[in-house]
Amino acid sequence: MDLKVRGSKFLIFEINKSVTKDNRPYIKVILMDKEGNTYNGIMFDSNKLKFDPVKGNVVEVEANIQQYNGQPQFKITNMALVEGENRFDFFPKTENDVDNMFNEIKSLMYENIKNEYLLKLLNLFFNDNEIVDKFKVVPAAKNVHHAYIGGLLEHTLSVVKLAIIIAEYYSKDVDKELLLIGALFHDIGKLFELSVDESFDYTEEGKLLGHLLLGIELINNYANRIQGFPKRLKNLINHMIASHHGILEYGSPKRPKTKEALLLHYIDDMDAKLNTFKSLFDKENIEEGWTSYDRLLERQLFNHNSKY
Amino acid sequence: MDLKVRGSKFLIFEINKSVTKDNRPYIKVILMDKEGNTYNGIMFDSNKLKFDPVKGNVVEVEANIQQYNGQPQFKITNMALVEGENRFDFFPKTENDVDNMFNEIKSLMYENIKNEYLLKLLNLFFNDNEIVDKFKVVPAAKNVHHAYIGGLLEHTLSVVKLAIIIAEYYSKDVDKELLLIGALFHDIGKLFELSVDESFDYTEEGKLLGHLLLGIELINNYANRIQGFPKRLKNLINHMIASHHGILEYGSPKRPKTKEALLLHYIDDMDAKLNTFKSLFDKENIEEGWTSYDRLLERQLFNHNSKY
Amino acid sequence: MDLKVRGSKFLIFEINKSVTKDNRPYIKVILMDKEGNTYNGIMFDSNKLKFDPVKGNVVEVEANIQQYNGQPQFKITNMALVEGENRFDFFPKTENDVDNMFNEIKSLMYENIKNEYLLKLLNLFFNDNEIVDKFKVVPAAKNVHHAYIGGLLEHTLSVVKLAIIIAEYYSKDVDKELLLIGALFHDIGKLFELSVDESFDYTEEGKLLGHLLLGIELINNYANRIQGFPKRLKNLINHMIASHHGILEYGSPKRPKTKEALLLHYIDDMDAKLNTFKSLFDKENIEEGWTSYDRLLERQLFNHNSKY
Amino acid sequence: MDLKVRGSKFLIFEINKSVTKDNRPYIKVILMDKEGNTYNGIMFDSNKLKFDPVKGNVVEVEANIQQYNGQPQFKITNMALVEGENRFDFFPKTENDVDNMFNEIKSLMYENIKNEYLLKLLNLFFNDNEIVDKFKVVPAAKNVHHAYIGGLLEHTLSVVKLAIIIAEYYSKDVDKELLLIGALFHDIGKLFELSVDESFDYTEEGKLLGHLLLGIELINNYANRIQGFPKRLKNLINHMIASHHGILEYGSPKRPKTKEALLLHYIDDMDAKLNTFKSLFDKENIEEGWTSYDRLLERQLFNHNSKY
Amino acid sequence: MDLKVRGSKFLIFEINKSVTKDNRPYIKVILMDKEGNTYNGIMFDSNKLKFDPVKGNVVEVEANIQQYNGQPQFKITNMALVEGENRFDFFPKTENDVDNMFNEIKSLMYENIKNEYLLKLLNLFFNDNEIVDKFKVVPAAKNVHHAYIGGLLEHTLSVVKLAIIIAEYYSKDVDKELLLIGALFHDIGKLFELSVDESFDYTEEGKLLGHLLLGIELINNYANRIQGFPKRLKNLINHMIASHHGILEYGSPKRPKTKEALLLHYIDDMDAKLNTFKSLFDKENIEEGWTSYDRLLERQLFNHNSKY
Amino acid sequence: MDLKVRGSKFLIFEINKSVTKDNRPYIKVILMDKEGNTYNGIMFDSNKLKFDPVKGNVVEVEANIQQYNGQPQFKITNMALVEGENRFDFFPKTENDVDNMFNEIKSLMYENIKNEYLLKLLNLFFNDNEIVDKFKVVPAAKNVHHAYIGGLLEHTLSVVKLAIIIAEYYSKDVDKELLLIGALFHDIGKLFELSVDESFDYTEEGKLLGHLLLGIELINNYANRIQGFPKRLKNLINHMIASHHGILEYGSPKRPKTKEALLLHYIDDMDAKLNTFKSLFDKENIEEGWTSYDRLLERQLFNHNSKY
Repeated sequence: MDLKVRGSKFLIFEINKSVTKDNRPYIKVILMDKEGNTYNGIMFDSNKLKFDPVKGNVVEVEANIQQYNGQPQFKITNMALVEGENRFDFFPKTENDVDNMFNEIKSLMYENIKNEYLLKLLNLFFNDNEIVDKFKVVPAAKNVHHAYIGGLLEHTLSVVKLAIIIAEYYSKDVDKELLLIGALFHDIGKLFELSVDESFDYTEEGKLLGHLLLGIELINNYANRIQGFPKRLKNLINHMIASHHGILEYGSPKRPKTKEALLLHYIDDMDAKLNTFKSLFDKENIEEGWTSYDRLLERQLFNHNSKY
Repeated sequence: MDLKVRGSKFLIFEINKSVTKDNRPYIKVILMDKEGNTYNGIMFDSNKLKFDPVKGNVVEVEANIQQYNGQPQFKITNMALVEGENRFDFFPKTENDVDNMFNEIKSLMYENIKNEYLLKLLNLFFNDNEIVDKFKVVPAAKNVHHAYIGGLLEHTLSVVKLAIIIAEYYSKDVDKELLLIGALFHDIGKLFELSVDESFDYTEEGKLLGHLLLGIELINNYANRIQGFPKRLKNLINHMIASHHGILEYGSPKRPKTKEALLLHYIDDMDAKLNTFKSLFDKENIEEGWTSYDRLLERQLFNHNSKY
Repeated sequence: MDLKVRGSKFLIFEINKSVTKDNRPYIKVILMDKEGNTYNGIMFDSNKLKFDPVKGNVVEVEANIQQYNGQPQFKITNMALVEGENRFDFFPKTENDVDNMFNEIKSLMYENIKNEYLLKLLNLFFNDNEIVDKFKVVPAAKNVHHAYIGGLLEHTLSVVKLAIIIAEYYSKDVDKELLLIGALFHDIGKLFELSVDESFDYTEEGKLLGHLLLGIELINNYANRIQGFPKRLKNLINHMIASHHGILEYGSPKRPKTKEALLLHYIDDMDAKLNTFKSLFDKENIEEGWTSYDRLLERQLFNHNSKY
Repeated sequence: MDLKVRGSKFLIFEINKSVTKDNRPYIKVILMDKEGNTYNGIMFDSNKLKFDPVKGNVVEVEANIQQYNGQPQFKITNMALVEGENRFDFFPKTENDVDNMFNEIKSLMYENIKNEYLLKLLNLFFNDNEIVDKFKVVPAAKNVHHAYIGGLLEHTLSVVKLAIIIAEYYSKDVDKELLLIGALFHDIGKLFELSVDESFDYTEEGKLLGHLLLGIELINNYANRIQGFPKRLKNLINHMIASHHGILEYGSPKRPKTKEALLLHYIDDMDAKLNTFKSLFDKENIEEGWTSYDRLLERQLFNHNSKY
Repeated sequence: MDLKVRGSKFLIFEINKSVTKDNRPYIKVILMDKEGNTYNGIMFDSNKLKFDPVKGNVVEVEANIQQYNGQPQFKITNMALVEGENRFDFFPKTENDVDNMFNEIKSLMYENIKNEYLLKLLNLFFNDNEIVDKFKVVPAAKNVHHAYIGGLLEHTLSVVKLAIIIAEYYSKDVDKELLLIGALFHDIGKLFELSVDESFDYTEEGKLLGHLLLGIELINNYANRIQGFPKRLKNLINHMIASHHGILEYGSPKRPKTKEALLLHYIDDMDAKLNTFKSLFDKENIEEGWTSYDRLLERQLFNHNSKY
Repeated sequence: MDLKVRGSKFLIFEINKSVTKDNRPYIKVILMDKEGNTYNGIMFDSNKLKFDPVKGNVVEVEANIQQYNGQPQFKITNMALVEGENRFDFFPKTENDVDNMFNEIKSLMYENIKNEYLLKLLNLFFNDNEIVDKFKVVPAAKNVHHAYIGGLLEHTLSVVKLAIIIAEYYSKDVDKELLLIGALFHDIGKLFELSVDESFDYTEEGKLLGHLLLGIELINNYANRIQGFPKRLKNLINHMIASHHGILEYGSPKRPKTKEALLLHYIDDMDAKLNTFKSLFDKENIEEGWTSYDRLLERQLFNHNSKY
């Protein structure tokens, strides 16, 4: 019932080096193929490898595959390093075109922002090439929602579009420009919280500070470079970033206290949760029926598929 | 510093009859004038009144007014019953035209609903005159949000309009007809939970069962009268009503498990909370600045009024 | 150390069909023998089966048994469908006689209920054959307490008997008839929430609405068929059903607000929890000593067996 | 509208001595008449009194009474100490005969307890005159439930009687003697937690340790005086006392882990909460209808009075 | 029983302008005398004043004093603005010398910090005159703990001293320099969160962002000005500030993840809570005995004063 | 890839006897070697053993070792009982000398305690040989913090030393003798809550009552033997023990209400949590970097090792 793999290419998504109790070195890996499928693997006596494997390597693998509850488990017998491969080819990716999404966000922002200081803020941001490059690849999370290359961009675009719609619906009550700036920047700290340098993971500063504080630091840096940027305006933007998780228990140090912060919280949460619902249906291929119980959401989900 | 009131008309909004420790009957009332302002009043030796005052009476009042921390307090010396007044003239009211709002909801629903069973459900509802009449007066709450005549209608119209917008935005993922039916009926149990027969108050069945269960009972009654109404369809509608508070702690017996129930929860909560923010700014006349601390929201609110 | 099974009959209690990463169909099953023992099984290349196995099938199995931490694991090599078996023979069952229990409930109710409308309600219920048939088989839960054929009946009988005792103890304070009606119907929605059509499982309407709402719907249907059934009486019964979980966090949309609702909550919870304690002692065969840690109860339980 | 009081006798239930900001001594008191009614009073320039008033004094009062929202407020002009009055005449009392209740508990215990060590424990307790005397007066709480002279005795008798009933109902599962001992002693620490020396109040040790720990200390003291008292038996009794509040949040350091501890928790809580419901109906004289909102119970209560 | 005040000087600590329901302007004030006592006052027809009173004014007051439950209540008949008074003379103040405390902090920091970047950070801070001036006056809170002029300095000095002690105690495990930097800066954002410009109050940026985020912004600004300041070092400092409330529910966006952050949380909380205990004993003048119930701490406190 | 073990000595740390579904007896064990490493083992057909293995036995084992994710799993083929081994040789131990630590505690206590009753209490305790012997071996917990032989002693010594430091720091506010007595005895109930008779485990009384109540019982027993021991002093000590977990949710039946109880809580929690941090770094050998996610602490921990 066992199969062999020889010569296929995989990305090392996670790697853990250790020694067995009887002192033989071994490694445990999570390997990812180009369709984004992941496989658990183990290799004993890993000291015989001809290179020192690290997260983000692309490798050719020889392994026996054992079925374990229908999951193939790789007993790796050898691995070789492959040069010249683009590790991004191995990651799950947004289905949309990254550059199109980026351009759409940019257009929407410039169409709607008229305030001179906010315009200068946009200019600094959209011309910050290092930032823009990251913005096009970083996922919105390691798991849960929009957890794929371009996921942050896709989610941000969606929140921006919803912000426009909602600001127009509540046009008498809401400052559209402020809400849009909040939409654009609410998760911008994820550029620093998550890294795709080797594979998706939280960074040191991400774990120590989180994307709310890292996003505020970026805004502060831009604002400091804009002569006369109004302090209140900076505070209102940072308040939206700080409070967008809605409640203290979810890591927001302040609850939303302005109408724009309130609306941003709902828009962001709604878009993220709907994407989570969709991911769970996709993951279990539920076209019609129930997912299994999800521990984070504390429920099973139902896809009626409009059949009633 | 004291003033007198003589001959002004008030609605008895709340009334409490009791005896003092030395056995003299007295009454405490909350009186409401035609601008919706309320005043606390007390009348000792109330047995000398020529009628038995009850909640909802319109009365002429003689009283001395004492300033108590800037609040006038009525020491009532006499009251007379006034016949022929419409008690609704004394309630706070929505600023919008009730019939226009009702017709807009009706049009929006018929424009968008195509499913034959949902159409029959709409027909039963919109032709149920007793229900429709109530729908045009009931507030959405006794306090907090949309707490005025026509408030339920105003809030429902807003949720319906948002549901259309959001369903169109997520058109690939969401069943627009289902979401709209949820929007129309999510709070419909408030027709039975709140009464404006004398003044705003929760009804016996409202306190025993609540608007979620009372709304579901109405849907069940309509569905039972429609030959062949699909059971799953009824369940999906009732699930949206049951779960629209989002979490168990807020009285929903089930968490949202379908995409439409999820979205309905966010739309409803967002519209209600934004109205709460606006009510608090209005109540304290905050054009720019901070409200006082609100115990339910656990925060002060800030109205920047776009001045930055 | 491995054994073989050939020709033994099992009920398919759970079944899960999937494909391995290398695209071979396989199934995972939970099989149940006639003593209620369950076994995990897996079958690869399940496309070679001569029938399409579904939950509730009785099958003959050929398998190799592997010990995995003392649990036999079935590596299934073949299965054949068995016709003419009663799937209820494979379920765990109450130790009491179902018809006796049913008759005892019926007698106790008719002995104690005198109110004409409650009597009519009882008549409708006890003559509703489809309902009565279900009442004799449905478990009180999928797990945790009274999780066996006839479990709902056994638990309901116990709650009815306790309600009589408690109502007689607090006879000056409590409406015995009302409390008994609450005892009979508090979990009646489980008839629709749980299904034994194939094996124990929650139904679609069970997951979307839950047994509280489904029980109230049944009461409403009966009450609608009884001319002049008092609205307050219906509300008081439904309030007992709605509030019997005691707190919002456990899915009751209202807290108990009448003395009968309060007492019903305690009686029901006490009987269910005591049964849970007993089930845990049974499951681990603890005649004297400690169970292992139970995650739901957040504790270990101690059976002193009166040895001190 | 003001009245005078001259020469009436009151108990000083609470007293608070202070100085006004302009340095004049004044006292605030709660006075209780012989029907258990309480009145707020204030006396300025209290240094002119001929005695030093303390909690528990019986006094004759001269005062002007001002109606404040229908509550008489005593502006005290003079007070004189009255000797030879029994302060217990001023406290609210159980409606039942204290000696009858005590004898009933005693009989029930001796009828049911057969274990030699438990009998010795009963002997020590029922012959501990100081304890028995306290047991006949102490209330079960300062507020909330059974908050009157003899209230602890009344509540304990009720829990003992319920324990017998429940132990007989679950006779196969429960150790009746153990449950009864738990019922008798579960709140016995209140003898030390609450004092009626002057008026109802929590004692220093009550506030530092609470009735759970003080009850366990009493049991330990008795058990230490009984040769060979089994350690496990002592632990099982103390576990029932320690866990009878059911959850950690309510001050129980352990959750119920035996069947008897579990049942005791339900019986105690049910009897206390039902008494709370009754007290709230009494306090507001609700024969039929709703109480006002109770902040501790987080609800209004409904007394249907079997009218439906 | 009424008194008059004429010519005394007070600080306007809080002021609230409004109109009575019959449209007469009035103001409510909290006045503070030079001993830090506060008095509630009300003035009707305040349009007759010859100046526009604002928070922070020093005024001479004419008023009638009414005793209300032993609290003097000022019915103000006139007020005049007083120029040339120092409003700080009216605030409660730390009992310690502000400059001594400041110098002690400075010495302790320079004695212990050796890392070149941390030294540069200290230099920037201690030479930032505007910051240093604020540091000498700002309280640590509006209420609760160290709520007086110099309170932040006093609390910070105490945390620094404790940090040294604890770092020396756990010298093998803890980075003393890092812990001390955390001690110095943990509450530094309060310089911006609280204002003493008129009277103690939270600032706009304080309410929108809070002292955690404002403190981090200050550190970032300093670090940006220090060439080569290590990013990890900055992150570790900011992590201590961000996590020093210990749990998310208290507004920390991250839990402590380093040993220094853990210890800082305990030291800070211990010092603040002990000061709160002391403040409550002081406020009620409890030399020996119990305070009244404190709602924030959910308990009464006991001062045994070593008498046992 | 499989290995064999023959003749190595292990302690049976946990043992679980059962029968397979096909009725063959088997045992599951956790074995511990002399370096404190633990191994999971399973033995089928255990009826062939020549002795009845129980927890605490030292055994020689023959087994095949299978690598399971890098963890050796023992398939035991035979075991023999080894006499004359000291089971303590197999337990993890404190790195410090037990007698030194004990003498240090003793000296520190006698240096600082002057109150005659507290001195008598110390005498009773330090001369209670059975207690002292236990004190030198019991761990502070089964897991989490100081979970090794001598762990309670090590933790107690640290809390005593910290108590001295903190009492000296807050010398004006704190009763040093009282705080030290609290430090010495806060966890003393663990002598009875945890047993090392066979291997680390919670005792029956430990699970029923917990170390808070068991510690208080010990103090009560000593105090009862000291003529004239002041009741308040006993209450203050017991209050410190009862409240040292700080909040009800962590099993303290009372919150800290004295300054000493407050400080003790912080000192104890700080020392325990720092030890937990260190244990987690040790367990995963993290010299610099992140631990994996810890479910109890709800976070990953970072060891910067002062490299920045």
